[in-house]
Amino acid sequence: MNRRRDAVAIFPGSFDPITNGHLDIATRGLSIFREVLIAILVNADKRPLFTVEERVEIIRKVFRGSRRVRVATFSGLLVDYAEEVGASVIIRGLRAMSDFEYEFQMALMNRRLDPRIETVFMMPAESYSYVSSRLVKEVFQLGGRVSDLVPPVVERRLREKYRTRGGRATGEAV
Amino acid sequence: MNRRRDAVAIFPGSFDPITNGHLDIATRGLSIFREVLIAILVNADKRPLFTVEERVEIIRKVFRGSRRVRVATFSGLLVDYAEEVGASVIIRGLRAMSDFEYEFQMALMNRRLDPRIETVFMMPAESYSYVSSRLVKEVFQLGGRVSDLVPPVVERRLREKYRTRGGRATGEAV
Amino acid sequence: MNRRRDAVAIFPGSFDPITNGHLDIATRGLSIFREVLIAILVNADKRPLFTVEERVEIIRKVFRGSRRVRVATFSGLLVDYAEEVGASVIIRGLRAMSDFEYEFQMALMNRRLDPRIETVFMMPAESYSYVSSRLVKEVFQLGGRVSDLVPPVVERRLREKYRTRGGRATGEAV
Amino acid sequence: MNRRRDAVAIFPGSFDPITNGHLDIATRGLSIFREVLIAILVNADKRPLFTVEERVEIIRKVFRGSRRVRVATFSGLLVDYAEEVGASVIIRGLRAMSDFEYEFQMALMNRRLDPRIETVFMMPAESYSYVSSRLVKEVFQLGGRVSDLVPPVVERRLREKYRTRGGRATGEAV
Amino acid sequence: MNRRRDAVAIFPGSFDPITNGHLDIATRGLSIFREVLIAILVNADKRPLFTVEERVEIIRKVFRGSRRVRVATFSGLLVDYAEEVGASVIIRGLRAMSDFEYEFQMALMNRRLDPRIETVFMMPAESYSYVSSRLVKEVFQLGGRVSDLVPPVVERRLREKYRTRGGRATGEAV
Amino acid sequence: MNRRRDAVAIFPGSFDPITNGHLDIATRGLSIFREVLIAILVNADKRPLFTVEERVEIIRKVFRGSRRVRVATFSGLLVDYAEEVGASVIIRGLRAMSDFEYEFQMALMNRRLDPRIETVFMMPAESYSYVSSRLVKEVFQLGGRVSDLVPPVVERRLREKYRTRGGRATGEAV
Repeated sequence: MNRRRDAVAIFPGSFDPITNGHLDIATRGLSIFREVLIAILVNADKRPLFTVEERVEIIRKVFRGSRRVRVATFSGLLVDYAEEVGASVIIRGLRAMSDFEYEFQMALMNRRLDPRIETVFMMPAESYSYVSSRLVKEVFQLGGRVSDLVPPVVERRLREKYRTRGGRATGEAV
Repeated sequence: MNRRRDAVAIFPGSFDPITNGHLDIATRGLSIFREVLIAILVNADKRPLFTVEERVEIIRKVFRGSRRVRVATFSGLLVDYAEEVGASVIIRGLRAMSDFEYEFQMALMNRRLDPRIETVFMMPAESYSYVSSRLVKEVFQLGGRVSDLVPPVVERRLREKYRTRGGRATGEAV
Repeated sequence: MNRRRDAVAIFPGSFDPITNGHLDIATRGLSIFREVLIAILVNADKRPLFTVEERVEIIRKVFRGSRRVRVATFSGLLVDYAEEVGASVIIRGLRAMSDFEYEFQMALMNRRLDPRIETVFMMPAESYSYVSSRLVKEVFQLGGRVSDLVPPVVERRLREKYRTRGGRATGEAV
Repeated sequence: MNRRRDAVAIFPGSFDPITNGHLDIATRGLSIFREVLIAILVNADKRPLFTVEERVEIIRKVFRGSRRVRVATFSGLLVDYAEEVGASVIIRGLRAMSDFEYEFQMALMNRRLDPRIETVFMMPAESYSYVSSRLVKEVFQLGGRVSDLVPPVVERRLREKYRTRGGRATGEAV
Repeated sequence: MNRRRDAVAIFPGSFDPITNGHLDIATRGLSIFREVLIAILVNADKRPLFTVEERVEIIRKVFRGSRRVRVATFSGLLVDYAEEVGASVIIRGLRAMSDFEYEFQMALMNRRLDPRIETVFMMPAESYSYVSSRLVKEVFQLGGRVSDLVPPVVERRLREKYRTRGGRATGEAV
Repeated sequence: MNRRRDAVAIFPGSFDPITNGHLDIATRGLSIFREVLIAILVNADKRPLFTVEERVEIIRKVFRGSRRVRVATFSGLLVDYAEEVGASVIIRGLRAMSDFEYEFQMALMNRRLDPRIETVFMMPAESYSYVSSRLVKEVFQLGGRVSDLVPPVVERRLREKYRTRGGRATGEAV
């Protein structure tokens, strides 16, 4: 019943783009698990800022030199992908109570779909508790500084992206 | 002031499609109220998976033989419809804290619009706490098993629907 | 499976003392259920302000003339008492999110102990969302006016009680 | 470190349209701050019911005679606008727990972007706890009465607007 | 209706002892209000670590030199005390969602008791989001370092206090 | 920076007594970590039902045969104990939103006290979402069945304990 499976952990998400909050969780995951696999969901319905290829490349640059971090893309059910790559753990960051119920709903569904995969929740540093990819993009577009919210390569890429796209942000209270 | 009105209860929703969670709440409603009227909101703005007619037909099949359950469609204000059909109670399922505030806001507004209609909240079995129509569709599209989340007729219809439509799901962490 | 049981509803609590919030929920219960049984928990461990006998008497006065309201005391498991008196429904008021999880935990436990008893949650008028027996006592002791928070008989009794007891309140921010 | 800046307070939002809840918060703001600047966000991406010009005009009418209320529009970062107009405080209304985390995330981001601007949260009257611009529009479209939820001028404008537009609401449970 | 009263703000609490989180809120209050009055509740029922006199003295030392901060003690209703000292605003820090409902309940009650006094909520720096007087005492007793959680004078006093008292902490997960 | 430490995980608590919810979390911990150390807090201030020795013995019986589970007691700071026994991870179960903020506060404090120790949160089966040691004792005392909430040895011990003690429960709504 309680055999211990090989502790490769998947850290799934859109990472459009990766933030310091993601980076923080991945690094914490590395302190516990043998390997962290950052798995970018390929989602045909959403309109991302960065293509899947760009996101893979950015994350590779961010983790350059960390041999225990891998980056990949997946589509389909997360638990199927986890089985495919031999991962037994899903890592999710919990920033705030608003994350909590959505994350629990997902985790319970994933457990039902495959009870051999366990979800563990980790807590980012409190200074990242309000950082999300969406908010980073919004603030950047409006001219705000994001250098302490994302890795340098992401800031560079944001600059390139918006130079070519222009565009308007949509926040109500930032 | 406190005359007791005839206890017909409306259970409103989109039911696109009905899940075992809905079924659970409706059945609990039947243990308390004389009649439960499942009222499907006709909403021109949303793009449902199943047409209103299909949803009516599916729910009829699910409750075949339960003479105290009726199915109908409505548009306009829920409280106006409740008055029209002589219902005095609105049933809503509360699965989790995230439902809570939205439901309370709706219930307070409905009370203001018609103080004679009372909203009661019921709690589904904990095994349905993470089941929603949206998540069922998402999991099904990605190839996950939903047989314990929806009645058999719904699973059959999902299979037919996606065979003709194809389509892609949008979840981030399932 | 879904026989409808006779809709007597229990409204359990300490009622030390009954507030306008309790009164509001009981009255709403009466608009739905044939009879509302206000059931005062006899709890040897707590130090109430009013004795159980005083609480029964106060509630009787408050509901004088409402033949569909009964008052009683109970000890032991609530569901056992519900079976004993032939009630099939437990009514609980949900004022705010902080009530929510405690109430859900209790309701799930009660369902496990006796699945034939159903808990329904009702919402008091928003003007009572912050009224609790504890806060009423605290405010009264500090000299605040509570006439719109409790029935007149309760205010009278509070006055008598504190005249004889004296006493100090414990709030931090009222 | 703790010099006191001149207490002009910005009350930012979409105000599409202004509700009695907004009015309540702005009035409370006036009891504390020298001047309240109602700042309408110009957001090219959203499809408002009222144009920015209409919203300015409506709010001017609502506050006619209050010399300490000003109305303006802004785009870009809120904190940049605050600096520009010499405001040191952002006022936000907190109606319910669901507002809480979004508001905190925004406030923390704004503090990071400009630590000299402070966000204060105020609480509307409990009778407005469920009022939002979105819900007002929805209820109005479905034929519900909104006269106690918005100022008279807004009700008049809603009537004109929907006479010309028609349109359907999208709620599930109102 | 909306005359602006003189903006003296009360910051009430037990302050047993004052933490850097309290200090942070008081300082933010000073950036907005003319004067911040730190009001220590004298509560005969609680067993504080520091006497009321010690707490007054500690807070005086912490704010030495800030002429716009005053320290006082009060008993009875907070709003009565506010009227007495001519304050029109109550400041409360909101650290997390768990504070939220308790604070709202208190604020609504205070508004009912005296609608002329307004409560405003402010947000401490995120690094103080988990700091409370209770937790500081607990950690200190167990031998943990609290130098970044409280002002130096408080750390000194904690050391003196526990040298004389000894004592054991009660936490479950620190 | 991100060396992986040896993955021994501490599961701290009072375990007065251990429930099936605790058992579930410990078992899930075993599927991820090399060893799970169940650490019973020795808390002189609380009045437990079972002595620390009894609790150690009960947990040993429950996990008899699981060589990767150890049981121990500790006092003082949890992170100091973790360092002492060479554990790098603290496991905490998150049952519901009400746990969330308390747990986060503890985890942030522990991280501040020792950043090398990481807290991970795991989710019990939904059927244990409402099970707590306190509630189990309460229900048992009132005569309710707890056989599916605790391991058989615990049920036996509860029976022995209350035979000798008698005693009264304190719940309001069970």
